Amino acid sequence: MEKTTAELIDLVNEQMKSLSLPAEPERLYAPIEYILNHSGKRLRPLLFLHAIQLFSKLTNNHLLPAAGMEIFHNFTLIHDDIMDKADIRRNQPTIHKKWDENVAILSGDAAMILSTKYFLGLPEDILRPVLNEFNKMALEICEGQQYDMDFEIRDNVTIDEYLEMIRLKTAVFLASALKMGAIVGNAPVEQQQLLYDAGINFGLAFQLQDDFLDTFGSLETFGKQPGGDILEKKKTYLLITALKNANPDKQTQLIDLMNNENLPAEKKIESIKSLYKQLSVDTVTQEAIVQYYTKGFSLLKKVTGNHIVKNELQQLFQKLIKRIY
Amino acid sequence: MEKTTAELIDLVNEQMKSLSLPAEPERLYAPIEYILNHSGKRLRPLLFLHAIQLFSKLTNNHLLPAAGMEIFHNFTLIHDDIMDKADIRRNQPTIHKKWDENVAILSGDAAMILSTKYFLGLPEDILRPVLNEFNKMALEICEGQQYDMDFEIRDNVTIDEYLEMIRLKTAVFLASALKMGAIVGNAPVEQQQLLYDAGINFGLAFQLQDDFLDTFGSLETFGKQPGGDILEKKKTYLLITALKNANPDKQTQLIDLMNNENLPAEKKIESIKSLYKQLSVDTVTQEAIVQYYTKGFSLLKKVTGNHIVKNELQQLFQKLIKRIY
Repeated sequence: MEKTTAELIDLVNEQMKSLSLPAEPERLYAPIEYILNHSGKRLRPLLFLHAIQLFSKLTNNHLLPAAGMEIFHNFTLIHDDIMDKADIRRNQPTIHKKWDENVAILSGDAAMILSTKYFLGLPEDILRPVLNEFNKMALEICEGQQYDMDFEIRDNVTIDEYLEMIRLKTAVFLASALKMGAIVGNAPVEQQQLLYDAGINFGLAFQLQDDFLDTFGSLETFGKQPGGDILEKKKTYLLITALKNANPDKQTQLIDLMNNENLPAEKKIESIKSLYKQLSVDTVTQEAIVQYYTKGFSLLKKVTGNHIVKNELQQLFQKLIKRIY
Repeated sequence: MEKTTAELIDLVNEQMKSLSLPAEPERLYAPIEYILNHSGKRLRPLLFLHAIQLFSKLTNNHLLPAAGMEIFHNFTLIHDDIMDKADIRRNQPTIHKKWDENVAILSGDAAMILSTKYFLGLPEDILRPVLNEFNKMALEICEGQQYDMDFEIRDNVTIDEYLEMIRLKTAVFLASALKMGAIVGNAPVEQQQLLYDAGINFGLAFQLQDDFLDTFGSLETFGKQPGGDILEKKKTYLLITALKNANPDKQTQLIDLMNNENLPAEKKIESIKSLYKQLSVDTVTQEAIVQYYTKGFSLLKKVTGNHIVKNELQQLFQKLIKRIY
């Protein structure tokens, strides 16, 4: 029987709880337990498991690699939080804050190694293709993170470069989770590719939506205080679009506003939002978001396999777009 | 035809040079190229390849996983150097010094992911057992590094705890390199285990020798200025043995000497060396080293397989003990 998204979340959470990591060395494994218990959305395991049951029967053996995917995701969060100097993640202190930076480096490393371990029980004939995909994705995520850091100290980032960065940093993981599930489910290659491409488009849509809500959202729709990207002068889709659309005068005005450290935060955010609107940054971004998720849904439509599961997957993506999930 | 150690080093170095890592993002891949070019001893690839040709024919397909092993080793060095705040490695600035810490974290991650990639071309039937061994070893190395850091802030480390730490941090990699080679070479399980156990004993011997030479060696025998461990108050086999053998008076004397920041470095090193000798630390340590490598050679003696290769392997270990390699 097909599992609903809600049922899969429970299964994944149960699997995560029963991993029984070693107790010692405590400062290596306790941080991993800590971050895994701050239950995230488990999105990547969900995509993986749904993709499996699109094409074949889901079994308990599939839960360990699903957990591995979530652990890998958390490895990236642990190390990204060090690099981004982020103190809070999911309303809790990050590992390098709660423990220290060395603990975060090493427990991140151990989480990454553990994540691979949980794939090694897969059947002989699919172990290699799944690990090839996993490995390619893992390296691309590192590349995305490096470009993200590079962009912080570059002034001439183009829209295309930005899209490529978020494709690597965010979208490929969703795409690969779907594709790996399709491989495990023995789906035909063109079906694997359709799911992968759908995942890329949804991933780009979600990241652009994140950029949009960080400036134009509310505490309710964004889930945290908006305005952070503006205050950090982050080179998001919005800022790059604004600089591209602005004439030299407006460009200077925008850059001066961004760099004005005497302006109160509230005032700075409001002024830049207003300038963004004059430059149609809000509508341009929303158009891009709609374009990517429309493409995602049209690709998903072409996916064959179990109709009930496909419906669950569509609903999952719809909820993510509406941010009610 | 069997390859000599010298021939294998050339093959490994050629393979390392022809990996052709991507050019971009430059700050992700250039640091990996940088550390791989500071040619180390390539010891782990050598052990892996010798173990293969003990039991079967060596082919060019074996060189990529051998390179993967060296890359994994370098990943551990990159991250350990951040954690240990080491500025110099193989006479060159470490990556976090030459670039910055974020670059070292992320290029280390990428190196780790790359290392696994190079195993994925192994034949179907041995891919899983080799990756299982690799994964187990990788996690144990993290555990060893964590214990090593834990010991820095603990005063009551026992000899057994110390030996377990260096087993995890140093010895299992040599043991697993041999065992993985034996798996690839289709050696019987008991032969795999013999090589593994020999590797553990040699690994312990080498680390204890490192501890010994850091205090009792010369610039020639140790390869760098001795005395570093004493000045850093490192809890080595020597210091733990000294504290165990000393009566309360001598213990106080040793601790006072260690903590005396007014004593010139030369004088401190000489005084502690002299105290160590009074406490028979030098002879106790040398006996332990001899005990471990004698055990290593007696295990190696029981290994069957190609005699010429076995002879090469024995000579390699002998050179390592004499530090002339």
